[in-house]
Amino acid sequence: MDNLEQISCNKIFGGFQKVYSHDSSELKCKMNFSIYLPPQVEGGDAKLPVIFYLSGLTCTEQNFITKSGFQRYAAEHGIIVVGPDTSPRGVKVEGDDESWDFGVSAGFYLDATQEKWATNYRMASYVNKELYELILQAFSNVVDPKRFGIMGHSMGGHGALVSTLRNPGLYKSVSAFAPICNPTACPWGVKAFTGYLGEDKSKWVEWDATELVKKYDGPPLTLLIDQGAADTFYIQKQLLPENLVEACRSVGVPVILNLREGYDHSYYYISTYLNEHFEFHAKILKA
Amino acid sequence: MDNLEQISCNKIFGGFQKVYSHDSSELKCKMNFSIYLPPQVEGGDAKLPVIFYLSGLTCTEQNFITKSGFQRYAAEHGIIVVGPDTSPRGVKVEGDDESWDFGVSAGFYLDATQEKWATNYRMASYVNKELYELILQAFSNVVDPKRFGIMGHSMGGHGALVSTLRNPGLYKSVSAFAPICNPTACPWGVKAFTGYLGEDKSKWVEWDATELVKKYDGPPLTLLIDQGAADTFYIQKQLLPENLVEACRSVGVPVILNLREGYDHSYYYISTYLNEHFEFHAKILKA
Repeated sequence: MDNLEQISCNKIFGGFQKVYSHDSSELKCKMNFSIYLPPQVEGGDAKLPVIFYLSGLTCTEQNFITKSGFQRYAAEHGIIVVGPDTSPRGVKVEGDDESWDFGVSAGFYLDATQEKWATNYRMASYVNKELYELILQAFSNVVDPKRFGIMGHSMGGHGALVSTLRNPGLYKSVSAFAPICNPTACPWGVKAFTGYLGEDKSKWVEWDATELVKKYDGPPLTLLIDQGAADTFYIQKQLLPENLVEACRSVGVPVILNLREGYDHSYYYISTYLNEHFEFHAKILKA
Repeated sequence: MDNLEQISCNKIFGGFQKVYSHDSSELKCKMNFSIYLPPQVEGGDAKLPVIFYLSGLTCTEQNFITKSGFQRYAAEHGIIVVGPDTSPRGVKVEGDDESWDFGVSAGFYLDATQEKWATNYRMASYVNKELYELILQAFSNVVDPKRFGIMGHSMGGHGALVSTLRNPGLYKSVSAFAPICNPTACPWGVKAFTGYLGEDKSKWVEWDATELVKKYDGPPLTLLIDQGAADTFYIQKQLLPENLVEACRSVGVPVILNLREGYDHSYYYISTYLNEHFEFHAKILKA
């Protein structure tokens, strides 16, 4: 299947943190992803819920698995956790390495339409179709196909929210740390959307959580948003969680915004509140 | 004081993970160290215990603070945690970067006597005198000078054990993950000791935990040793915990060896059992 190949396997909190590579048909390159299999996969009859975790700018599949400490909580709750990379890899597109917030490691979890990027930069279809299907098939003996959740950080928080809102029911639970909540209104988003989607702003709103939530018409959903109050990018208005909260309230979608005094944008911050996010997802996925 | 300068400060689990640099007189170079100040430093009258954590080969002060997740446990128990670097930095000694297990990031927590290394490679005096004193002075308002413990990993596990056994009473509690227990009898140790201490093996035993414990004559001490059973370096007999256990039993020093089925040498393994080590230290330091 897709030349699925195990790259690494380390025992942690009674389960196994693995990294695989495979040939992606959506992205037309070899991609890595991580998967944590908690101890409950052994000998259990019940199939387990899955959480996808989407990382932020400059990250690979490694950051979350080495820095967050999530495995403790995944093991406690018996949840499988899958972490894709943040962009196509090893595909040379002119200009893809000129900046840290566009191109390589900055795929923004959308499907690009501008010619130069459209062939490879299809992270939305990669995550929500190809990788989702791969996990269902390759791990069919342990994965419950009806219980997928998603979370992410920064650009990956944007990815988690947009993936959920664009694909009603695909993810039963969603949460985000310091997400880019309103990319059409912040410098990171404007740069990425101009590059990947072109100048026509009517196309941009299809990839903006604050815009998408206004027309959400899927199963009931509560958004859990976490934000460090001392996060430089929050202060610089790259993240704009208040815009998302206002949009949610305007249409009656439940949203929780937890503002964390003194915390920044780093994995130090994420690691502190991951436990609460796993509790939130577990409550929904194991209801 | 020593040009003490704060390099970074991140809030995590209610406390602050900081990194400082200072001019070391023992090592004759600028050194970084990490210190975690748990939430209990704020407004508390009681002074807090301190644990030193010594890292392994190839590490800096960063590995433990970004990969282990220890801050959760330090915050729970109200313990300050200090992490030095693993060798002098920015000092060019001929041959110091030729191998990953000798020279830069491989100081072995001893005081070198061979001429080429003797000026800078004095990690034992650095950790147990200079940095210890610096912590007592610079953080005198929050540190309890009577309650220091020490732990470490691999080369740093060796460092923790040797520092404790050579300086009776300096550290009240000691534990180690996958320590090099008998360096005079393993390839890593033979290489390092030959380089730093010369050919005279009678000098080597003064830096070998298995040898030192046989003549330990300090306050009562229990050694907590943790070892992954699937650790390649354990299998290759670089670590030799059984030799230390046998030596402890021969002289009646209490020792606990926890062998962990399926676990390797990585921070995935360490993160899984750190909680138990903090419980062990807290029981002694907060008795």
